[in-house]
Amino acid sequence: MAKPDAPEGGIRRLLAQVKSGALTAERAVGRYDPARLNEMLRPAIKASAAASLPKWTGGICGAPGAAAGRAYFSSAALLEAKKRARREGADDRCVLVLPSLFAGDIPALEAAEGALTLQGGYASHASVAARQYGKVSLVAPELGIAGTGAALGDLRFCEGDFITLDARAGGSAVYLGAAELAAPETARSSGLPEFIALARGFIKNFQIRANADTPEEAELALSLGADGIGLCRTEHMFFKEDRINSFRALILAVSGAERGAALKELSLMQREDFYRIFKAMAGKPVVIRLLDAPLHEFMPRGDGEIRGYLDYCAQRSGTPCSRDAVMERMETLRESNPMLGRRGCRIAVGYPEIYAMQVRAVFEAARRLREENIAVLPEILVPFVMNGAEFRLIAYGKRTEGAAYAGIVEEEKAFRDETGGEPPPYAIGAMIELPAAALGAGDIARHAQFFSFGANDLTQTALGLSRDDAAAFLGAYSRYDLLGGNPFNTLDNRVKELIALAAERGRLTRPDLVCGLCGEQAADPAAIRFCLDAGLDYVSCPPYAVPGAILAAAQSRLAALG
Amino acid sequence: MAKPDAPEGGIRRLLAQVKSGALTAERAVGRYDPARLNEMLRPAIKASAAASLPKWTGGICGAPGAAAGRAYFSSAALLEAKKRARREGADDRCVLVLPSLFAGDIPALEAAEGALTLQGGYASHASVAARQYGKVSLVAPELGIAGTGAALGDLRFCEGDFITLDARAGGSAVYLGAAELAAPETARSSGLPEFIALARGFIKNFQIRANADTPEEAELALSLGADGIGLCRTEHMFFKEDRINSFRALILAVSGAERGAALKELSLMQREDFYRIFKAMAGKPVVIRLLDAPLHEFMPRGDGEIRGYLDYCAQRSGTPCSRDAVMERMETLRESNPMLGRRGCRIAVGYPEIYAMQVRAVFEAARRLREENIAVLPEILVPFVMNGAEFRLIAYGKRTEGAAYAGIVEEEKAFRDETGGEPPPYAIGAMIELPAAALGAGDIARHAQFFSFGANDLTQTALGLSRDDAAAFLGAYSRYDLLGGNPFNTLDNRVKELIALAAERGRLTRPDLVCGLCGEQAADPAAIRFCLDAGLDYVSCPPYAVPGAILAAAQSRLAALG
Repeated sequence: MAKPDAPEGGIRRLLAQVKSGALTAERAVGRYDPARLNEMLRPAIKASAAASLPKWTGGICGAPGAAAGRAYFSSAALLEAKKRARREGADDRCVLVLPSLFAGDIPALEAAEGALTLQGGYASHASVAARQYGKVSLVAPELGIAGTGAALGDLRFCEGDFITLDARAGGSAVYLGAAELAAPETARSSGLPEFIALARGFIKNFQIRANADTPEEAELALSLGADGIGLCRTEHMFFKEDRINSFRALILAVSGAERGAALKELSLMQREDFYRIFKAMAGKPVVIRLLDAPLHEFMPRGDGEIRGYLDYCAQRSGTPCSRDAVMERMETLRESNPMLGRRGCRIAVGYPEIYAMQVRAVFEAARRLREENIAVLPEILVPFVMNGAEFRLIAYGKRTEGAAYAGIVEEEKAFRDETGGEPPPYAIGAMIELPAAALGAGDIARHAQFFSFGANDLTQTALGLSRDDAAAFLGAYSRYDLLGGNPFNTLDNRVKELIALAAERGRLTRPDLVCGLCGEQAADPAAIRFCLDAGLDYVSCPPYAVPGAILAAAQSRLAALG
Repeated sequence: MAKPDAPEGGIRRLLAQVKSGALTAERAVGRYDPARLNEMLRPAIKASAAASLPKWTGGICGAPGAAAGRAYFSSAALLEAKKRARREGADDRCVLVLPSLFAGDIPALEAAEGALTLQGGYASHASVAARQYGKVSLVAPELGIAGTGAALGDLRFCEGDFITLDARAGGSAVYLGAAELAAPETARSSGLPEFIALARGFIKNFQIRANADTPEEAELALSLGADGIGLCRTEHMFFKEDRINSFRALILAVSGAERGAALKELSLMQREDFYRIFKAMAGKPVVIRLLDAPLHEFMPRGDGEIRGYLDYCAQRSGTPCSRDAVMERMETLRESNPMLGRRGCRIAVGYPEIYAMQVRAVFEAARRLREENIAVLPEILVPFVMNGAEFRLIAYGKRTEGAAYAGIVEEEKAFRDETGGEPPPYAIGAMIELPAAALGAGDIARHAQFFSFGANDLTQTALGLSRDDAAAFLGAYSRYDLLGGNPFNTLDNRVKELIALAAERGRLTRPDLVCGLCGEQAADPAAIRFCLDAGLDYVSCPPYAVPGAILAAAQSRLAALG
């Protein structure tokens, strides 16, 4: 299909032309560029206003859009400055400037307009989080940070100085000073809902779902046309400032009792979140992914976070906590390659109580909604599955001579026995994000009702490419055009082959296996075309990418019709 | 095939029976257990003598055998104690006891009888290095180290105390005190050479090569019956105490000039090593793998190593070096997941001069041998290949508008122009150790003359399993039998599928493509059977495993004949 023409006017104009009969619906839907639909919802720089500002061109667009704010070089400094500016009625816009982002920085990212980081890329933690929260992210490997000052090309700026980020796939820039921003159109004023409805009319048997980790994101996704939640990352629910330490307590627990106490705290939060997400989606599918936390992303870092964690521990137990003990435990848990380490369902194989808690929270939330006569169909997703035996253990449990693992189904039985009555309906699926799982899909599908393909991790493992580290050397790769684009933006052909092969093998075992593609690449029009061709049932992408994905799917269907 | 019976006597007895006609050669070869052939060359504990020693049972066998020596908790302390004991004529046997081993610890490992480590497993760096050097390695996750003391179950020992390691696949143990060891049979006294020759008679069109990184290892491999060197890891050539800092200078170089100076030093060492290895193998194939150093394994660690590196730098440049500058550079190079980071040919894409130096050293060594009328066929192996475009760049170079990459073939032309005369014959191959490379084998084989399958890395990426970190959680996996054994010991079925598929796709493009399996799993009889079935041309394993591999291959062929 040829690239759609750039429209002369906006969506409203196209809709008016369809209404008047001057344009067919097919032409209107076919003509609009999906990428523009996503950018429409973001602020942009007024070019004239920025012309006089010192400018540095370069960097990698992590999350598109424009953002202006005062630069801060630590999460603590940013949060403090934000509070102060609010108190004083000053311009409280801030930009986070850091080597890279970790879980502990997410509250500051939420408070900021955007982030400028040194390490990472489109697929790094900072960018993924920024896109999820609708923030701007720009990665500049050339950035030099020293204390509370930074250098980027000829630009120099210090803590509190205004900078402006302009992150675009076509070419990004950083300005010294606050450039004037044009407010984005709102979904309603732009005619977006009508246009999405028009596009959706051409899509059959294919859903556009959203990645959403909180009730707020679920509501946003719904307002942007999502057919459901394709990925709710339960570990992301604990990014918030008041929750992260409970989660850390779970990771750092030494005894079963400590783990149990942390789980109890987390259980209450999670049950309430699940309830609100299910309620927002009211009967639309919601995929709850059980815990998948590469440990390095969640450990407390730096003196401030460690102190914060110790304070939390002391408050919780009523007695001071040993810093040495915490440091020692962190040292024990440190991994050489955490992306290939103890994560996903590997955590559950060692500590069954964690998934047991999460599954129980899903059942409890679902039960509560059924009592309110609100439809709900949770789809429980097991992450980082290696093979059929492992998935079967997690889903159905296993007894051996020396050990017993309960599994999700047994947990459900126990829940039913305790609470009486009908079991809440639910499905159990496997996240296919390892090459071995893709090849072993036939075995896994014997036990799994659905597959969710994790494009990000499958790219990491198939290509042996760490998303956190790749930006440092992929520049040389694009110079010689060795990869046909950044594989974290555009699905690599071998990753596609693994997905297509897994769907095929899975459906040989289970013909009605539901398959979806999740991840950052899922909103890419080429990826959507591939998913349609491979017979997948849905894609799931960040909420702001949903309108563009719907349009891309419609265009793909239209092109297939000729 | 049924497991071969345990023989009543040793190899000599079997050979005598064959000679007398009491036993056919087929029966003799078929009856001996390949694992026993490997153990035969290692010291073992005299059970009666150890009965009275305090004992702890458990741990993972990293490299089989028994070793007794005084415990030391740092490489520096061990090397110092070793020197002192030698000076004093005392028992100088030492055992290295560390959380885990890095490149800087290899000189101490060489001086030690064996290593007891906390982290790792069969496939971890410590174990791989120990097997390569014929040392004993035992991994005990239960080990507690505090300063210069350690606890293991009820055992307590301090620096300088004798301990004995007994590492066996069937069940390992640690003793307090020095148990008496039975000396291993020598290859000659046991009749091993004759027995190997007998077994080899049954193997057609299949080679058993050895992994050897130094001339000494190449000679050892040859004496144990190796058909060639299947893997010479050029970065391992720099493990030695007097070389490691030159290698570190290469990694840590900031400017091209610094890199150039380090390369010059390394080039001289490498040329001499290649010459000696080629000479030892005299016409037998030698696979030289170009640099593949996950950076984290080579960085200086701890105060002692960093000081040592700074001293080296100061001596080299004649002026003191800035510790801060080195620390900052190390920080910049630090990767979240080094196994998926800037390693293998990714280093070359960014810094072509490194492979250019190595290739040049190969050509120079080969030329020198040809002048001495000694046959030589170097096979140059490019590690960590992702796809055909990347391999093509490394092998044949590429010119784009903004950049030019010379490639191996152009390097050879330059060498020929400079030195005149015939080009040295050589082959260029790709290491297939990423799932994407296995799937894209057809493309890669358009440019590669041979494939070397890297079982270790292919296992890491296909299963998403870090060899350094897996031991911490694989215990729970074997409890529920989820993986059918440790995938770093026994090839996983999906890894096998990727290898078979890659060989098939590669040969569709290039029917005479030579394929070999390298790595720790390659000596496993089941892996050898698989390689024969999949039509591979060779396996390559550590020198001490060569006799067992030859026997396993012979038994597999005999079984296939029925």
